[in-house]
Amino acid sequence: MIAILSIGDELILGEIVDTNSATLSALLYDNGMMVKEHATVGDDETAIIEALKRLSKDYKTIVVTGGLGPTTDDITAEAAAKAAGQNVALNEEALKHLDDYAKRAQRILHPINRRQAMLPEKAGIIPNPQGTACGFIVTLNGSSMFFLPGVPSEMLKMFKATVLPYIMKQRQETDIYQTVTMTTFGAPESELGAMLQQVILPENITLAYCVNFPSIFVKLRGKGADPNILSSEMEKATQNVKDILGELVVTEGDSTIDTIVAELFRKTGATLALAESCTGGLISKRITDIPGSSEYFLQGAVTYSNGSKERLLGIPGHILESYGAVSHETAEKMAIGIRESAGSDIGVSVTGIAGPDGGAEEKPVGTVFIALADKKGCTVERCKFRGNRDAIRNMTSYKALDIIRRHLLSY
Amino acid sequence: MIAILSIGDELILGEIVDTNSATLSALLYDNGMMVKEHATVGDDETAIIEALKRLSKDYKTIVVTGGLGPTTDDITAEAAAKAAGQNVALNEEALKHLDDYAKRAQRILHPINRRQAMLPEKAGIIPNPQGTACGFIVTLNGSSMFFLPGVPSEMLKMFKATVLPYIMKQRQETDIYQTVTMTTFGAPESELGAMLQQVILPENITLAYCVNFPSIFVKLRGKGADPNILSSEMEKATQNVKDILGELVVTEGDSTIDTIVAELFRKTGATLALAESCTGGLISKRITDIPGSSEYFLQGAVTYSNGSKERLLGIPGHILESYGAVSHETAEKMAIGIRESAGSDIGVSVTGIAGPDGGAEEKPVGTVFIALADKKGCTVERCKFRGNRDAIRNMTSYKALDIIRRHLLSY
Repeated sequence: MIAILSIGDELILGEIVDTNSATLSALLYDNGMMVKEHATVGDDETAIIEALKRLSKDYKTIVVTGGLGPTTDDITAEAAAKAAGQNVALNEEALKHLDDYAKRAQRILHPINRRQAMLPEKAGIIPNPQGTACGFIVTLNGSSMFFLPGVPSEMLKMFKATVLPYIMKQRQETDIYQTVTMTTFGAPESELGAMLQQVILPENITLAYCVNFPSIFVKLRGKGADPNILSSEMEKATQNVKDILGELVVTEGDSTIDTIVAELFRKTGATLALAESCTGGLISKRITDIPGSSEYFLQGAVTYSNGSKERLLGIPGHILESYGAVSHETAEKMAIGIRESAGSDIGVSVTGIAGPDGGAEEKPVGTVFIALADKKGCTVERCKFRGNRDAIRNMTSYKALDIIRRHLLSY
Repeated sequence: MIAILSIGDELILGEIVDTNSATLSALLYDNGMMVKEHATVGDDETAIIEALKRLSKDYKTIVVTGGLGPTTDDITAEAAAKAAGQNVALNEEALKHLDDYAKRAQRILHPINRRQAMLPEKAGIIPNPQGTACGFIVTLNGSSMFFLPGVPSEMLKMFKATVLPYIMKQRQETDIYQTVTMTTFGAPESELGAMLQQVILPENITLAYCVNFPSIFVKLRGKGADPNILSSEMEKATQNVKDILGELVVTEGDSTIDTIVAELFRKTGATLALAESCTGGLISKRITDIPGSSEYFLQGAVTYSNGSKERLLGIPGHILESYGAVSHETAEKMAIGIRESAGSDIGVSVTGIAGPDGGAEEKPVGTVFIALADKKGCTVERCKFRGNRDAIRNMTSYKALDIIRRHLLSY
């Protein structure tokens, strides 16, 4: 039984959203443990002490984040000591950590940072490879309480390196857990479910779905006594799922469609040019989110007006007039035009109606044409997306990346 | 004393991040009330009942979100009834709400939706103008518990329309509260603080800062007995702050720099073209996030390669060779080039090094040139931003929007 306690005035006042609790819960769940409660209190000694005392009665494991900074409003260590009936004392290990940090960062620490080495006297240390705040462990009512800083990146590194292995070891259970997450795109959950009814899985591996708009995660969760046997079972199960779902599976693990597309460009050596209308630069933005994208992304044109479609993409005015800016023909000419202008291997275009205005009966809001041109020709897909402007633009950019992905897979 | 309880397996498993608690806390704080605790439990009857019983002992007001849907895993109403020692019963008002909803949406509701009218027998109804789930009020241990659906947009509308006025009335205090939030950009918190040391505020109005990278909110919080007097005091205080901060104040209230820039384009009738290098389409994306942007945004060019800078913007190769792609000269030619190509009133360009690679001693990662060209000429600003690739791109897009904003203000 695990609980997570987040500490910070900025959380309780709603200045920032607590993402740590969700991150930790998901990670624990993937390792076979279920969190039962999240709690949040401000930087308030009484509130922290009460929360720790209460949670320690109900839960064997408590992960606490926040309030380990150097300023006087960071009072988690003192409150933890009081809750556990201990004094705070200068912790030599934490002090050495601060000195090492200062040396590494070639900085002289402000004397105020010394506060970060004042910990409950019986606390064990959780190393922080990144920042100044050491984490620590305190026990109360037979419950292990792990204290980590609130900065998400520091917190996560420390949790993975020290706390998670500790919790896994502490559990009496000898079974280990593995999770494989596959990102899928292009079929709704019901269709994935129907396709995967035929998949044969061993009893110790379960299948779950999780919507992460506009993609859907397919998760395999396995449990076993022997890590090697479990790994090979998981590998086989993953392959079975992939064989059934085929190109619906975008990627596996932490990578995203954005990173996969980048990888495929690097692998194939293909180059890209983009012409965007309704997405207004969003696809270019996603492509260039990835460092090194200048290797394969030659240029993008955001042709929001008809004039710019003529100027930048060389689309004849009569095409725009006869078929409209949102049409099969315009999408085709846009993709061919940007490919020729850039001299790239692939030219991709999108034109559509993101709303809220501009819809018509034959082309309602959400109608989008996506075209891909290469040396062999040009294919155009007509799509109908639902939702508000943001959702339609988001969906369109994902779909365009997926069309690029599938094209590069055939290289 | 207020607590917020969020209910949902998807929250406790970390599949989605709880934003409702932060939204509600901020809103309550702006109205003079401080939330003391957030708690989250899964769709688990025992856990919900225990949480409600515990919180009702410590808090006079509890806002509960989630678990009011039609499916069998939504059990909040039943758990609320059990916690309060009531039965669930068909609530005629909630049933009528479902019928009205179906009529309005021209839909036939699935019989399963009838579950949403099964509420604690003594519950009062909280109307839902948007979805199928009515909210409700239950009292326990002298504490008022307000139950709302988890969908953020529905939850917020219902809270503002019914719960917040109810809580305000319930408080014995007769004072009312008002908050004005100003978004500032271009000066760090310390500088804002120094500038605002001279501001004269009445005793009932306080000043606070809240970082919302890359902008900083300056908040005025006022308290008073008479709403009209307080409003005029707040107005005067806001004007005082604005007079001191000048153009550092981007906007007031819920609007953002993106919506303000859109408003200024509509007001001035000016048109825009963009040439982006390091931001890779992000500025175009932000401009076109706003419905109706096609009125003033003529075209964008994402010129990621040198070749595209020559082709789309007509930059002579010798400029790129002599000065480099990231230079004052190139930024200037980009802005002038895109303005001429589009025939727009304003041409804006950015070129820089977003990292992680590509930095050099004289032009380290984070060096960005932003240029604005109009009929009178072209101004270029050299910036040095800190942080990772995302932060630098984000900061660059904000700064470019701010340069556009300040330019349009002088129209």
